Amino acid sequence: MADLVAVTRHTSIAPIDGGITAPTGFRSAALHCGIKAKAGALDLAVLAVDTFASMAGLFTTNLAQAAPVLVSKRHLDVTRGTGCAIVVNSGCANACTGEEGLANARRMTEEVASALGCEPEQVLVASTGVIGVALPIDRVAAGIQEACSSLAHGRGSEAAQAIMTTDPFPKEHAVRVTTPRGSFSIGAMAKGSGMIEPNMATMLGFIATDAQVAPAMLQRALAESARDTFNAITVDGECSTNDSLFAMASGNSGVVIDEELYPALLDGLLSVSRPLALGIVRGGEGATKVIAVSVYDANTVDEARQVARTIANSPLVKTAVHGADPNWGRIVAAAGRAGVRFDMQRVTVRIGGILLFENGLPHDESAARAAEILKRDTVDIEISLGAGNASATIWGCDLSAEYVRINGEYRT
Amino acid sequence: MADLVAVTRHTSIAPIDGGITAPTGFRSAALHCGIKAKAGALDLAVLAVDTFASMAGLFTTNLAQAAPVLVSKRHLDVTRGTGCAIVVNSGCANACTGEEGLANARRMTEEVASALGCEPEQVLVASTGVIGVALPIDRVAAGIQEACSSLAHGRGSEAAQAIMTTDPFPKEHAVRVTTPRGSFSIGAMAKGSGMIEPNMATMLGFIATDAQVAPAMLQRALAESARDTFNAITVDGECSTNDSLFAMASGNSGVVIDEELYPALLDGLLSVSRPLALGIVRGGEGATKVIAVSVYDANTVDEARQVARTIANSPLVKTAVHGADPNWGRIVAAAGRAGVRFDMQRVTVRIGGILLFENGLPHDESAARAAEILKRDTVDIEISLGAGNASATIWGCDLSAEYVRINGEYRT
Repeated sequence: MADLVAVTRHTSIAPIDGGITAPTGFRSAALHCGIKAKAGALDLAVLAVDTFASMAGLFTTNLAQAAPVLVSKRHLDVTRGTGCAIVVNSGCANACTGEEGLANARRMTEEVASALGCEPEQVLVASTGVIGVALPIDRVAAGIQEACSSLAHGRGSEAAQAIMTTDPFPKEHAVRVTTPRGSFSIGAMAKGSGMIEPNMATMLGFIATDAQVAPAMLQRALAESARDTFNAITVDGECSTNDSLFAMASGNSGVVIDEELYPALLDGLLSVSRPLALGIVRGGEGATKVIAVSVYDANTVDEARQVARTIANSPLVKTAVHGADPNWGRIVAAAGRAGVRFDMQRVTVRIGGILLFENGLPHDESAARAAEILKRDTVDIEISLGAGNASATIWGCDLSAEYVRINGEYRT
Repeated sequence: MADLVAVTRHTSIAPIDGGITAPTGFRSAALHCGIKAKAGALDLAVLAVDTFASMAGLFTTNLAQAAPVLVSKRHLDVTRGTGCAIVVNSGCANACTGEEGLANARRMTEEVASALGCEPEQVLVASTGVIGVALPIDRVAAGIQEACSSLAHGRGSEAAQAIMTTDPFPKEHAVRVTTPRGSFSIGAMAKGSGMIEPNMATMLGFIATDAQVAPAMLQRALAESARDTFNAITVDGECSTNDSLFAMASGNSGVVIDEELYPALLDGLLSVSRPLALGIVRGGEGATKVIAVSVYDANTVDEARQVARTIANSPLVKTAVHGADPNWGRIVAAAGRAGVRFDMQRVTVRIGGILLFENGLPHDESAARAAEILKRDTVDIEISLGAGNASATIWGCDLSAEYVRINGEYRT
């Protein structure tokens, strides 16, 4: 999966160790400050740039936006995309917490700024965990001071653990991008599983690079790479109050990203983002399989995405895949209600490459072979609309009784 | 629930026995023709008018439309809404069956027409059951001839059983509408549960009245009554290939519906439709609770419906209700991603009348009381958007592990 990325001509991309702190110029620290009840459970991380970095961010489109989202958006505006650090806590989303929540999110940036000697506006903040609960801000503030005094290179993996909530495994990835004009690194970490303790899902993603990138170009590359990675996944169709994706560029590699090298930066971002996005789906609540829904021959990419998303979110398709049932009828019906116009007579449906529906008629003779393919832990569903030349893929997961159990248990 | 209908001034509505054949002028027959494997399981129903009736229909908006939907739409067009009978089979949806399927659906109308002495275009047809499978048309044709020779008054309950697939109980209702200008009756039956054997959900509804109504007015009243009943429910957000709702008006009561009596007709339609629509939700696959989501103080009814529908289809809200968790955060987050603009600070959320969220802040002190209310088999969720004066209600159900089991089992 990680090698699906098209590599720009004369550019090569190779995986490296080190996660979010693989690029030069970044240090991190992670510790237990006391938000999570379990002793020693990491719940706070600080990621700092040695000097200053270009910064970019993408945020939830939900009308209900958590305090850290509001504060980070404002800080990116004020600084026009420059900064020195990001602070993240898990265990508490600081969402639906009113004026006190806003003050606490600002306080987190102030604590980092005072410790590192920068302005609070140069610090971004993210939170994930239970909503409607106030942060234990004194413990968080003390933890931030302690973290800022122990920042170190090469400890990105601890940060990737500190941002987890109910994620079944940490998600980090890094690559080295070699171009004709030199090489740079990109490291990333993400979290997101579905319900949290058990409240609402949050997707958080962090990307660091030592390429030198102007803030506007970093924002553009982040948005473009997210479209086909973090914005192309779904666990349950929900959109949280806290979803945030950040990028930081230190410039330490000396490689300047201009329009010529922009494709190399984009490919690098895609290379680290895709495995993390797929990791979120694979670690989705109750998920036992990843479902890649690809729609081909649509009139526009937006229409292809709309059809793919409707299929990937269909509870009937998700349960059919869970039960290894090659139920093309549910796929056809989901496509037909996606709100996109096309001629059903020209549609084909394939599961794992096996043709199951064509010319308005089933190929049930292939159902047994398709059922075997559905037992794998990654399932490809391909739909051709027979209309145009546009295509898109959305990654989702199956719906299991475990999802209901996780999300149906009363909060204790 | 059945008495939520506002009764027009000087009009009274009272429930009566008899289901779909309660109004005068209608006869029905139901039998086992051999579509369902189980011996004796009713799988065919014919509903006939003694003379001729005004007819109206509403159909699935899915691009994938089953053969009976295409044939019935065409017949309503050709006759401009007059007819003499409806034929329905269960056990086979006759969907995704190509030209053969269209020929079979037409054949069903031809068999009824030859037996009753009318034109095939004066007969409507509906099917529900497995998709992608051809009808055993010879057995169906023989069954239609036998049914047409045994049509009788007062046997609507058998028809209500014959249209069932995996429905846990039959759904029928009838009322007597008394107006200053005389009284008339309305009878109705419906089916629809979710997945079928196990394939895709189909909602079928049939309404008969002995009021005298012109076809255009019958169509208008059917659409208006469906908006707040059959079109205001959701089991899993899916939309089938076969969904159909029919109305027939025999005129036998002698009560002529004009603009003055239109409200009485509409109230009568609402009175029979609402309990059937709620019955579909209560009998939804794996459902243990009905959830009534009401959105108030929206700018428009469409916006209120959009927010209510997003909440009612949210897997996180549905699982929370299943687990009796008063999780207002999931309700707020679902409202926030509904695509409607409003000020989250002005939103209030109530469960069973208990205020849980206001001014952007939780009222967690009431959570325990709300959890008690969530143990009931009908749960009211009320959201005020604090924007305008429009409101809407959508009825849904909880999401249980049983839903996953029903829909995740491999077809055998």
